[in-house]
Amino acid sequence: MHKGLIVQKFGGSSVANAERIQSVATRVVSYRKKGYDLVVVVSALGDTTDELIELAGKITTDPSEREMDMLLSTGEQISVALLAMAIHKLGFEAISFTGAQVGIITDSTHTRARIIKINADKIKEELKKGKIVIVAGFQGININQDITTLGRGGSDLTAVALAKELAAKECEIYTDVEGIYTTDPRIEPKAKKIKAVTYDEMLEMASLGAQVMQARSIEVAKKFDVPIHVRSSFNGKSGTMIVKEVKRMEDVVVSGVTINKNESKITVCDVPDRPGIAAKIFNHLAEKGVNVDMIVQNVSHTRQTDISFTVGKADAKKALRLTKKISGNTGSGQVLLDDDIARVSIVGVGMKSHTGVAATMFDAMAENKINIEMISTSDISISCIIKKKFAETAVKALHEKFGLGK
Amino acid sequence: MHKGLIVQKFGGSSVANAERIQSVATRVVSYRKKGYDLVVVVSALGDTTDELIELAGKITTDPSEREMDMLLSTGEQISVALLAMAIHKLGFEAISFTGAQVGIITDSTHTRARIIKINADKIKEELKKGKIVIVAGFQGININQDITTLGRGGSDLTAVALAKELAAKECEIYTDVEGIYTTDPRIEPKAKKIKAVTYDEMLEMASLGAQVMQARSIEVAKKFDVPIHVRSSFNGKSGTMIVKEVKRMEDVVVSGVTINKNESKITVCDVPDRPGIAAKIFNHLAEKGVNVDMIVQNVSHTRQTDISFTVGKADAKKALRLTKKISGNTGSGQVLLDDDIARVSIVGVGMKSHTGVAATMFDAMAENKINIEMISTSDISISCIIKKKFAETAVKALHEKFGLGK
Repeated sequence: MHKGLIVQKFGGSSVANAERIQSVATRVVSYRKKGYDLVVVVSALGDTTDELIELAGKITTDPSEREMDMLLSTGEQISVALLAMAIHKLGFEAISFTGAQVGIITDSTHTRARIIKINADKIKEELKKGKIVIVAGFQGININQDITTLGRGGSDLTAVALAKELAAKECEIYTDVEGIYTTDPRIEPKAKKIKAVTYDEMLEMASLGAQVMQARSIEVAKKFDVPIHVRSSFNGKSGTMIVKEVKRMEDVVVSGVTINKNESKITVCDVPDRPGIAAKIFNHLAEKGVNVDMIVQNVSHTRQTDISFTVGKADAKKALRLTKKISGNTGSGQVLLDDDIARVSIVGVGMKSHTGVAATMFDAMAENKINIEMISTSDISISCIIKKKFAETAVKALHEKFGLGK
Repeated sequence: MHKGLIVQKFGGSSVANAERIQSVATRVVSYRKKGYDLVVVVSALGDTTDELIELAGKITTDPSEREMDMLLSTGEQISVALLAMAIHKLGFEAISFTGAQVGIITDSTHTRARIIKINADKIKEELKKGKIVIVAGFQGININQDITTLGRGGSDLTAVALAKELAAKECEIYTDVEGIYTTDPRIEPKAKKIKAVTYDEMLEMASLGAQVMQARSIEVAKKFDVPIHVRSSFNGKSGTMIVKEVKRMEDVVVSGVTINKNESKITVCDVPDRPGIAAKIFNHLAEKGVNVDMIVQNVSHTRQTDISFTVGKADAKKALRLTKKISGNTGSGQVLLDDDIARVSIVGVGMKSHTGVAATMFDAMAENKINIEMISTSDISISCIIKKKFAETAVKALHEKFGLGK
């Protein structure tokens, strides 16, 4: 009878109202009937988190992060209680827990805490009693018993970490899309659902703008080899498996094309060509909590060079101010901010063993008269920063060029 | 500088929106500036609790009480976080806690748990650091770490229990009225605010329909002699002190007139006059969790008698069903339900030393041609059940008769 344990995670849109919560309950129960043990991780209902943030915004523009965590963690607590009730209604046993109650111990970095360990005894005990265990996503507790949250998308991390801790067969991530696509179907209708991707590919896709899953949760899944199944909560179709290695029938070089319009570019002009200036700038930004993404500096053939880098749009003004402050003392020139950019990337583990992928990408851009402002590469991805207005054209061109619509 | 500790409790209407939360923060801070240590207990914002109950109602008509507590406790958690932010905004240090975090340990009677003990170390520690400590009302945790709630009005109990545990100078209960009145001012505009009442009087008033404070919290205040000050959160006026003994200038017999329209009357007709039948009925009701209030049985001069009792309106149908079931086996007659009643009561410690108070009450009723259906008395109160339509007339008549408007 016992087929083993599955961890299922349902995002906010999957539990947006009473009706959807009931439909989640029906799905969970259908797995129970098949003989699976189940741990279910739930996010806050629909827009609850945003509403709570708005409420805090009416009180103060600079809320204490500890108090924000206290506030936001209520969203998931509401969801787990309601889902437990919905499962009871169907005649099955279920029990809900907060992150604190199931011993998700984190560090004290409020609003983006890291899980230190999970004491899963309580969950195991309830599973043993035959109960469906429902856990509030996105939250934990630090050693002082303060409530912490794991950052945006943190419920994914809760699910993956629990799947690891409980040695689950699989971690199912239910969301409002049917899986991972070769690119955003809203931009390119020919985009196709991918049957399986590797952790590395998914990581690149996540950090490059595919917002299906939180990047940190994929890192953890990779580290502990937790198989993930991203799928829709609105139908029964299989979605995309995220696993260690994908055996593909054909030689796939590029798995997907991603787009990210949430970055801004900062350029420091005429930086004197002597050691330590870049270090000074980026150390200062790091100290002040600004996450820098791409960095490009050309080898200088004069005494001066330009350094460009990208940061999240939300950090752009702060980064500009900090950069101006530092670069002013180094004899550098102007500091420019460009909000009008997009990053278009191709991702695929196949790149490792293929040459000429970058050239093919640049060809596609040139054929569409798209100027490339910055280029950055990793083992399994190539990214170009272009003017935002060309983003959609670029995505379609790359999707076509690498044969992803077939 | 240190003037001692005050516990302040703010009800839902006092924190109904961002603006009111800011105004509560301003008041709390004004006490801090005067040199008081402060523990602030907060209820859920405005109608949050009712909204959460409604949400659960969309999922199931029979929710698990454990899950209801999980759900409802989020309301107060939101309030404490927001109030802490509002106090920070004013430049003062504050920290918020859930009931679980400050060690409010209760039994496991979900939705109406009783406090077993409070481990106030954490609060003392934060007070020592000079912080204003904000505690979520209405909630605690049982020994299994399950979240519990203390029943409607439970935030009052949290405040009183903390005041006792921390040996506070006073427990201030902030609400949307200015204090305790001689009767409901919406019914009798001549009603006057009472400067001070005893715990016993307040207990009678609370259980007889005055909804300013939860009855259990007054019991606890009485037991541990915690001085309570009920006052308005919308102005600075003194309200009503609730204390052990009130020294009054004049000899006051009746302190207040209360009214309660939330009860129903059940009558078992023609009960055979032999021992044990009443016990059977009321034991059965108690076992099934129905709280019986007044009970009246006349001495029978035939072989049969009628037994009448009152229960809360919400329990009326259940009580009727249970009573019918039991009385059917005893050879009793019909069981009748009357929803159309009101209880009007007079309360006052002065009654103990005065004769003729009941007679004066019945006179007032007779003068207004109001038929009395049931009478019940205690040491310091007399209650009459009358037809609901006469309730307002009776209240005004009694208020006048006992000179309360002067």
